Amino acid sequence: MATGKGQLPTLHPVTGFKLGIASAGIKTPGRKDLVVMEIAEGSTVAGLFTQNAFCAAPVTIAKAHLASTTPKYLLINTGNANAGTGEKGLSDALQSCDVLAAITSVKKDQILPFSTGVIGELMPMDRLLKGLPIAAAALSEEGWADAAAAILTTDTRAKGASLQYGKGRKITMTGITKGSGMIKPNMATMLGFVATDAAVDAELLHRALRLANEKSFNRITVDSDTSTNDAVILVATGASGIIINEESFDQFVAELKTVFIDLAQAIIRDGEGASKFVSVVVEGAVDTDEALAVAYTIAESPLVKTALGASDPNWGRILAAIGRAGLTNLDVNEVQLYLNSVLIAENGARAASYTEGTGQTAMQPEDIEIRVSLNRGQATETVWTTDLTHDYVRINAEYRT
Amino acid sequence: MATGKGQLPTLHPVTGFKLGIASAGIKTPGRKDLVVMEIAEGSTVAGLFTQNAFCAAPVTIAKAHLASTTPKYLLINTGNANAGTGEKGLSDALQSCDVLAAITSVKKDQILPFSTGVIGELMPMDRLLKGLPIAAAALSEEGWADAAAAILTTDTRAKGASLQYGKGRKITMTGITKGSGMIKPNMATMLGFVATDAAVDAELLHRALRLANEKSFNRITVDSDTSTNDAVILVATGASGIIINEESFDQFVAELKTVFIDLAQAIIRDGEGASKFVSVVVEGAVDTDEALAVAYTIAESPLVKTALGASDPNWGRILAAIGRAGLTNLDVNEVQLYLNSVLIAENGARAASYTEGTGQTAMQPEDIEIRVSLNRGQATETVWTTDLTHDYVRINAEYRT
Repeated sequence: MATGKGQLPTLHPVTGFKLGIASAGIKTPGRKDLVVMEIAEGSTVAGLFTQNAFCAAPVTIAKAHLASTTPKYLLINTGNANAGTGEKGLSDALQSCDVLAAITSVKKDQILPFSTGVIGELMPMDRLLKGLPIAAAALSEEGWADAAAAILTTDTRAKGASLQYGKGRKITMTGITKGSGMIKPNMATMLGFVATDAAVDAELLHRALRLANEKSFNRITVDSDTSTNDAVILVATGASGIIINEESFDQFVAELKTVFIDLAQAIIRDGEGASKFVSVVVEGAVDTDEALAVAYTIAESPLVKTALGASDPNWGRILAAIGRAGLTNLDVNEVQLYLNSVLIAENGARAASYTEGTGQTAMQPEDIEIRVSLNRGQATETVWTTDLTHDYVRINAEYRT
Repeated sequence: MATGKGQLPTLHPVTGFKLGIASAGIKTPGRKDLVVMEIAEGSTVAGLFTQNAFCAAPVTIAKAHLASTTPKYLLINTGNANAGTGEKGLSDALQSCDVLAAITSVKKDQILPFSTGVIGELMPMDRLLKGLPIAAAALSEEGWADAAAAILTTDTRAKGASLQYGKGRKITMTGITKGSGMIKPNMATMLGFVATDAAVDAELLHRALRLANEKSFNRITVDSDTSTNDAVILVATGASGIIINEESFDQFVAELKTVFIDLAQAIIRDGEGASKFVSVVVEGAVDTDEALAVAYTIAESPLVKTALGASDPNWGRILAAIGRAGLTNLDVNEVQLYLNSVLIAENGARAASYTEGTGQTAMQPEDIEIRVSLNRGQATETVWTTDLTHDYVRINAEYRT
């Protein structure tokens, strides 16, 4: 299952950024599973990576390479996460960089490797390496849609976002992402690759990435499980000739956020087993931490999520989640709870105006907003999540078989 | 579904403690749903209650009454939690105490009320009040098994534990509990009532309760959702004439822990949709907090739980859970992971000795132990949990219908 339309939008090419794919047969013969991305000379690159201590071998290598030099190529495979693979995993990831470096005549530390798929199995290196020259030969600025398909795992659809902005000469921003389960990014997403033709120096680019990421990939959860392989990369090729400086930075970040939020929401719309797209909005919190504590406690409650899947306005479970979110001195009589625009509960009880009928009606749409007003401060945060369905259990009981 | 045998053991009567039940028809006509418990003169009573800020009306009343005097009666209903019911809920809970006080000729603050069931609906007071004289008339020291049945909600079986210890004159301890979903007790359980005929002063009794509770009800999770109605009550009637002092305290607590752990494990064995009984043991942690962080992150991971339900040794998901548990400077190469006695992973990767076949075999039993050696300290903790199955989703999608 999945929610929304799910059609891949038009993905504008970004001058100076090329993508090529191959079918290496890493897990499934014949499927597109290998992507090489080429970054033009003079680009800047920023990245964020999973905080999971058991981070995958390619994450370790990519972080080290990104810290040492400006990358020229990104190398992504699906079908195998190269995580929980110890020393062998690290040498495999390095070898893949070595081979691609030889093909493309760059140094191996100019290549960032990324993997996604099953954890705990060694990478089938022969198949992966054979795919590299094929992907490298296919490099094209038109390759976004193919690449969006080639990085998927349990996803049911390709995910991308793209925009252009500016008067006269325009800046283009295009990105793709993947992710459906093991989704609670922590400082990053599953995998996201975004490029722009703006010219942005490395420090500004990293700031922009952090700001856009914080309100997008860092605001989603399917199942509370942070992946071992999360990474998001932002490339600025500069090919538009438009330089982003302190003055134009805020607009650049605002546009970038639009792309990032589109991508993050696309992950939630394709969340494993999802039949609902749920926005949890917490307002009137003392601070961001408090707003997020309440939002995530609701968004990750199995009881709330199963009720959502059943379109059951079981608001008592939402109150129970708010109540266990660990807030200091919460006055439950001040809390108001809305489903979409319907006031459900206040003064610690069902709202006088609420009827089961209005609640049932509010729960029918595919897109649901749960809004909590804590009425004790100014902070507001939004987290996006899915419901919990039989399909989620089926997908994750069967994933390895 | 449920695991284990599930037969209610012999529940020894505790002299000085009586139980009576009635069918009040609070939610379902004809089912046993109301319990009154009578505490003999001279008893001591200790209690622990949910930390959920949206605690139910009867929890608020019971805490206040317990703080003001020694209770003479406990009044428990199932079918309606009287939570999320605001001021009306409080007055309803007080009224039920009033009416039982009149029937039994005690003061209303000598009565502790407890409710469990659906959250957010007003208590059908007429039906509840009509049941009170019937339950009071049925009071008997032989009433444990009936009471164990009359406090259930989505539970599929009654839960109790009982033991006698001592040379010559013996001390009896008997308890019952309920709970199947919304199970992550925080300082208490769903509902648990334990009585002993030992004579224990109030301060010692409270200490004993805290100690026994901490390693039993505070070490279980079905779905990470802390209930609004959790409470556990320990009564010492003193009828055996055996006085517990500082010298005999340790043995008393050890025996009490046995009863409490039996009860807590019975909740997990009857966890909603459970097909596995899972012990998560974390050893070699720096401290208790760290051990519990890892144990609960594993025990609450939907991906680990769905793999358990499928008897799939998908150990990569367990490593991912350990890695996101928030430990400072975790060296993943020091971590060892066992399924029952099978070493699955070490040095950040699959153990050399491990084969998929041994993993599959280890996952077949109904009772599974996941053991994590962090190898960086001396603390060990055990948490008990269930798997996540289609039945869990079905039960919680259908609960209100």
